Amino acid sequence: MTDMQHLTAAGNEMSDSFLAAQRQSDKTLAALKADPGRYTMLTGDRPTGRLHLGHYFGTIRERVAMQDLGVNTNIIIADYQVITDRDTTEHIQDNVLNLVLEYLAAGIDPKRTMIFTHSSVPAANQLMLPFLSLVTEAELHRNPTVKSEMEASGHTLTGLLLTYPVHQACDILFCKGNVVPVGKDQLPHIEQTRTIARRFNERYAPKHPVFPEPEAILSDASEIPGLDGRKMSKSYGNSIILGATAEQTAKLIKKSPTDSQRRITFDPIARPQVSALLTTAGLTTGRDPKDIAEEIGDGGAGALKAYVTESVNTYLAPYRERRAEFAKDMDVVRDILHDGNARANAIANETLDQVRDAMGMRY
Amino acid sequence: MTDMQHLTAAGNEMSDSFLAAQRQSDKTLAALKADPGRYTMLTGDRPTGRLHLGHYFGTIRERVAMQDLGVNTNIIIADYQVITDRDTTEHIQDNVLNLVLEYLAAGIDPKRTMIFTHSSVPAANQLMLPFLSLVTEAELHRNPTVKSEMEASGHTLTGLLLTYPVHQACDILFCKGNVVPVGKDQLPHIEQTRTIARRFNERYAPKHPVFPEPEAILSDASEIPGLDGRKMSKSYGNSIILGATAEQTAKLIKKSPTDSQRRITFDPIARPQVSALLTTAGLTTGRDPKDIAEEIGDGGAGALKAYVTESVNTYLAPYRERRAEFAKDMDVVRDILHDGNARANAIANETLDQVRDAMGMRY
Repeated sequence: MTDMQHLTAAGNEMSDSFLAAQRQSDKTLAALKADPGRYTMLTGDRPTGRLHLGHYFGTIRERVAMQDLGVNTNIIIADYQVITDRDTTEHIQDNVLNLVLEYLAAGIDPKRTMIFTHSSVPAANQLMLPFLSLVTEAELHRNPTVKSEMEASGHTLTGLLLTYPVHQACDILFCKGNVVPVGKDQLPHIEQTRTIARRFNERYAPKHPVFPEPEAILSDASEIPGLDGRKMSKSYGNSIILGATAEQTAKLIKKSPTDSQRRITFDPIARPQVSALLTTAGLTTGRDPKDIAEEIGDGGAGALKAYVTESVNTYLAPYRERRAEFAKDMDVVRDILHDGNARANAIANETLDQVRDAMGMRY
Repeated sequence: MTDMQHLTAAGNEMSDSFLAAQRQSDKTLAALKADPGRYTMLTGDRPTGRLHLGHYFGTIRERVAMQDLGVNTNIIIADYQVITDRDTTEHIQDNVLNLVLEYLAAGIDPKRTMIFTHSSVPAANQLMLPFLSLVTEAELHRNPTVKSEMEASGHTLTGLLLTYPVHQACDILFCKGNVVPVGKDQLPHIEQTRTIARRFNERYAPKHPVFPEPEAILSDASEIPGLDGRKMSKSYGNSIILGATAEQTAKLIKKSPTDSQRRITFDPIARPQVSALLTTAGLTTGRDPKDIAEEIGDGGAGALKAYVTESVNTYLAPYRERRAEFAKDMDVVRDILHDGNARANAIANETLDQVRDAMGMRY
């Protein structure tokens, strides 16, 4: 899920296991494109704040493409994940409804994509119990992403953070998700989900497996740097917020740091700040950042920023227009979420019934 | 819950903290007797087999007394606890329905006592998520009873066993239980539940607390030894099964080991086997085991066993009669469980709604 993609998993990304995962992902993606109707995709976000351009190019755009391809698309708003490493749910209602707005603005069609909140689907959450019995405490501790996330948060390791890969397995498996788009740091979670599905089937349903073993689809989106060249992050104030106004965006770009060289060149290592601006302009115009740099040449930071501002605001204009349109009637937005929650509950209840049958827990 | 009471908690039972717990328990019990209507009690069993005389005198009798006193009594059949330390749910349906039978035979009145199964109440199980966020991984590991139970089972520590004190908090708190009868080994779990209730209230509902901090009531039932003087346990074959026939009981008592001394005396340290038989006779007749020993005198093991058989079978006769009566129509037994589950779901949904409100998770 979006918020976790920045975390560094243990090990080298070019390791054999990563390359194997990449090959497997390519294979899955090819199969999915050939027969999208056979695939159920689960993805989601933590409702911790507004989405930015990094989210858009990193995941949102990809979800819309999957939906439009005909994949059975499901988006979970993971409200319980907010409290894995923080002690408050402040602004959560606002954050959740804003996420729905973002999805709608981005082109998610609630008729084809089920949008729902974690806390609204008890039968899916109940899967935690049987699933926790299928993993050992040692396996829970071995997850490198949980460790790095705990360290990044500076928060004590809660029981919820320790067990959240199991909870993520509930999210994926309750709707029988068989593909999950992920960053490489999330591969351990998908592996955990596969293990849980396999063990459940072997132990309780050897003849008629209840759960699929989902495949990871590795996102190939290049990471977008923040306006100052660092990682794009709300806490750095370097993020272009999708729902901001054109004026707010212009102001943010104007005050972004550059360097003292007048001539604009694309050199991410030596000139991270200027290059971050060029990358942003490149992504939003579809042009090569080097060409843009050449075009601006001796125009300096001022001309560059004007170009970036124009590119970003032009690119986001239709998105923002749709967003404003949906925001006019929040009751409709709420209804879309309620409808998604009702559908998720129906699916979860059915899956939980299958689990009870498999385990003999029918009285 | 019954199955865990044999486990040895770390520390000395006569420690200051145990004495404090005993004093607190006495106070709670006195308050409960003075005003039973103010109390909601939650207790339960793992459906792993048939109940024996140890369960009866240890907990079942006490539950009936609480119910008859006017306490709001709730009994959970903890079917998910079966898989904390084993890999199968074999015979679970049979075990669950038999537990309901035992309760009814013992005098539990389903109109006054809610009987329900773990796996049937999703909204109660969902509480796992917010509750897990309120405990640290270190706290989970510190629980001495989880450790000893894991060691006793010889099973790898599963995620479910590691987190089951949190799950037990869900059981107790979803129905706002404020008293829980426990053996001393379970005091750490009640402490964990109190901590979770307190933290939830402090963090999310400081003005209108959602959860009570439940009090433990320490069982004062003396432990009944098995027929061979060891702990009464199904695996030792030394247990008088409540639902067995009089003939089966007679046979079991007949083959129980004694010693070579003809004269019968009550001496639990030097003569554990003979004394176990005397204790059993004492409990089921209400007499002092020493008086029984004196009465039998030189009659030897044969006379002792005849006396025990007669005492036990006489004591259990009305119980067994009621049990057989209920067993004639298992549909009624199932209906009682379904009704309990429906009531538990209504209560759990209401509590979960309060939790969502407190956490702002209303969309």
